[in-house]
Amino acid sequence: MSHLLVATATQQAGVAFEQFAKVATENRALFLNTIADQIEALGDTLLQTAHEETHLPLARLTGERGRTCYQLRMFATMLRKGDYVEASIDTAIPEKTPPKPDIRRMLYPLGPVVVFGASNFPFAYSTAGGDTASALAAGCPVIVKAHPGHLKTSTLVSQAIQDAAAKTNMPSHVFQHITTTDFETGKQLVQDENICAVGFTGSRTGGRALYDYASSRENPIPVFSEMGSVNPVVLLPDALQQNSESIAKNYAGSITLGVGQFCTNPGILIGLQSEALQNFSQQLAHEMNQIAAGTMLHEGIQAAYIKNSAQALQQDGISCLTNPVSNLTDTSNSANHQATPILTTVKGSVFLANPTFAEEVFGPYSILVQCGSMEELIAVWKKVKGQITTTIMGTDVDFKQYPQLLDIAMHIAGRVLINGVPTGVEVCDSMVHGGPYPATTDSRFTAVGVKAVKRWLRPISFQSWPNHLLPVYLQNENPLQIWREVNGQLTKDAVS
Amino acid sequence: MSHLLVATATQQAGVAFEQFAKVATENRALFLNTIADQIEALGDTLLQTAHEETHLPLARLTGERGRTCYQLRMFATMLRKGDYVEASIDTAIPEKTPPKPDIRRMLYPLGPVVVFGASNFPFAYSTAGGDTASALAAGCPVIVKAHPGHLKTSTLVSQAIQDAAAKTNMPSHVFQHITTTDFETGKQLVQDENICAVGFTGSRTGGRALYDYASSRENPIPVFSEMGSVNPVVLLPDALQQNSESIAKNYAGSITLGVGQFCTNPGILIGLQSEALQNFSQQLAHEMNQIAAGTMLHEGIQAAYIKNSAQALQQDGISCLTNPVSNLTDTSNSANHQATPILTTVKGSVFLANPTFAEEVFGPYSILVQCGSMEELIAVWKKVKGQITTTIMGTDVDFKQYPQLLDIAMHIAGRVLINGVPTGVEVCDSMVHGGPYPATTDSRFTAVGVKAVKRWLRPISFQSWPNHLLPVYLQNENPLQIWREVNGQLTKDAVS
Repeated sequence: MSHLLVATATQQAGVAFEQFAKVATENRALFLNTIADQIEALGDTLLQTAHEETHLPLARLTGERGRTCYQLRMFATMLRKGDYVEASIDTAIPEKTPPKPDIRRMLYPLGPVVVFGASNFPFAYSTAGGDTASALAAGCPVIVKAHPGHLKTSTLVSQAIQDAAAKTNMPSHVFQHITTTDFETGKQLVQDENICAVGFTGSRTGGRALYDYASSRENPIPVFSEMGSVNPVVLLPDALQQNSESIAKNYAGSITLGVGQFCTNPGILIGLQSEALQNFSQQLAHEMNQIAAGTMLHEGIQAAYIKNSAQALQQDGISCLTNPVSNLTDTSNSANHQATPILTTVKGSVFLANPTFAEEVFGPYSILVQCGSMEELIAVWKKVKGQITTTIMGTDVDFKQYPQLLDIAMHIAGRVLINGVPTGVEVCDSMVHGGPYPATTDSRFTAVGVKAVKRWLRPISFQSWPNHLLPVYLQNENPLQIWREVNGQLTKDAVS
Repeated sequence: MSHLLVATATQQAGVAFEQFAKVATENRALFLNTIADQIEALGDTLLQTAHEETHLPLARLTGERGRTCYQLRMFATMLRKGDYVEASIDTAIPEKTPPKPDIRRMLYPLGPVVVFGASNFPFAYSTAGGDTASALAAGCPVIVKAHPGHLKTSTLVSQAIQDAAAKTNMPSHVFQHITTTDFETGKQLVQDENICAVGFTGSRTGGRALYDYASSRENPIPVFSEMGSVNPVVLLPDALQQNSESIAKNYAGSITLGVGQFCTNPGILIGLQSEALQNFSQQLAHEMNQIAAGTMLHEGIQAAYIKNSAQALQQDGISCLTNPVSNLTDTSNSANHQATPILTTVKGSVFLANPTFAEEVFGPYSILVQCGSMEELIAVWKKVKGQITTTIMGTDVDFKQYPQLLDIAMHIAGRVLINGVPTGVEVCDSMVHGGPYPATTDSRFTAVGVKAVKRWLRPISFQSWPNHLLPVYLQNENPLQIWREVNGQLTKDAVS
């Protein structure tokens, strides 16, 4: 794509923003719902295309399409509810010295957003995924740069969005789809003066590069890059004593779910050296050996899996607990982009001495770190930096003995689980899919759930506006019947 | 200050965070209130010291001290109210396929924050100002780098904070004060791995430099720099016909308030060429001529005022409406750091052709831009980029004729006023003191008002936690009686 074409697209997005920011939220809600309808109307063609491009099973793709449409409709519901603008009203106090003016506040869209889709979620984190849905809900025009791994799928979905925009009379260029996959196009998009924010899901290298482009602009813009994570899991002694077998079963499933291609995949398990941990490691390896090799998204991802797991296995002090991995380089597996589940183990002291072990091996791989003391366990846990999730497997006995672990967990991750598996990201109000760097480039926001819309909004104060000129959210009568903070009190009442 | 001392301070802040994040909000509230008490207990000594260092009048300093203590107590009230954590609860639905787990969410402190004080607000935007108060309220330890313009004042206030910390049993090093004023110390603080966020109020050069240091770290951190602004004011024809004289009086006061040393100072006035605008310009110049020269904060600021206003006056097409400005270089004025109010004017076409005119002249200076058409007026308005405020002076007749102006205003600024003056920043829930770059480095947040606390918080999800292990905000019983979103509905009820 020539530079001129990108410049045209972003300029058109800028013009679209002036119109789109004014579109009533009811009409934006209709637009989002119609996108969901149009995606569903693509039927098996869409599923089949995605299956051919990503090798993901049809059942998984059907589920992911459902989630994608659910998200679009969830944001439509949010718009109709209206509370998301965080309306706040402080009425005037003329008799104060100096007089207090009438000041009202609500959230307002940032401007055109560029979205980079993910390889591992052709629907839910791509063209009409959470970033696009939340940005459109916010009132921001979107330019999607399609992921090269599923261009045809992305084009089908983009047509569904365009059709929905036409059906619901949205401004021209409210959504644009760019299929040029070269690196320069992405860079130019992020650096263009008409672009006001960026959403990205993918590798740390890619997410950081976009962040660097954006922060070195003359006017820096926010970038929400959601990047890799190893999602450390702490296995406490009493839990292993009590429930070793079921934990092993659940974790074998979680580590290999979707051939390990989830950003919430548990890549590091940490426990205290003991007979119980020994038993658990054997049970987990046994369970993982039962799970057949699976087809990865594409050759490049498989090649990286083979390379990164081989690199880990070459380090001193590591051993492999699952079956010998000669099949890593098996050509038949390679032809099908297949990956065999791998469980490795090291001592805590070895893990701490070698930063390679803390690096993500994207795929059905996990490393069990066996620590000599709770201090060592905590040191290992803290070494893995910012994470999307962290999990503690423990009983009441464990938590009584080690109460400090809960605080440490909160410092590490955006989501902290007790006695669960991190895979499976529930789309709901309370979900935080984010976390400190390098999990994301801005831990103050989430990429999943209703609150993902906050990434694309900024607050505006309206001082001394005549009531009839105010946005409808802030008018005295509260015509939309939304929750508002009026002089510090939450209420749906009108301002008298 | 040696590198070692900075490293020690940040390391101590990191240790303090682990303790401080666990301190009950009631105790944090007590800490903030005690800081306010201790500042007030410093009495006239504090005011006199600040007056000697900043040349600000005692009446103004008394007011600013009041505002500073009000802010500290406001955040204490916020903590006791508890709603600021944005608690949200989605209860489990075991019968769903797959089962929906129990997920709860609240905001949690980011970690140690570095605050850079402002020259023009020795209390309200400095050592115990809005940044420090909101960060401590959030649960983040603070390191203040004192402003060289008021080191003694800063040291007195820092002692008040230390005393309050001791009296209320806060963790050691919850607050630290660094008086080394060299550039390298600031850079090292922002780049230190223990530091998790930065607050700054000051020049665009300074604010941008800190942002660049923070964003080029191995793990980038958020920087909230609140920088300069010219706060454009649009003067519509009917308003000038009806109220020319009172607008001139109010704006002469606003332009010269505090010798023009406010980030909300109206530096650019924009109107349509007409007899009414001519009359207004003469009235405004007349009013400004009545206002005596005032003493600026320090010699450097005065020197910059003289240099920048002289530079503007040297441009082609500008003329000066106030009295001749020979006294700009008057040595007696210079000795007292005095500044004479200046009103200049240019045609819209001249303004558009020369970027110098859009630059801030910090001090009692404003430029009146006379435009040949509404299109030209809008072009001039948009040219000044992101602003803290923008104002429209207009009547119902004006707004009927030019309804598009309200939308444009929202795209430009963080606070939009109708028929007011931008100086005077009310500390309240609905205040937004922020705006698109270059007003700030993150338009999604405010530096003033209760919501300033959001800059230092990130959300965490708690999945499947036993009720008794959850933070008190999220426990079923709602022991703090706060507003929570439970399965999408705002309520203070317990979860059954």
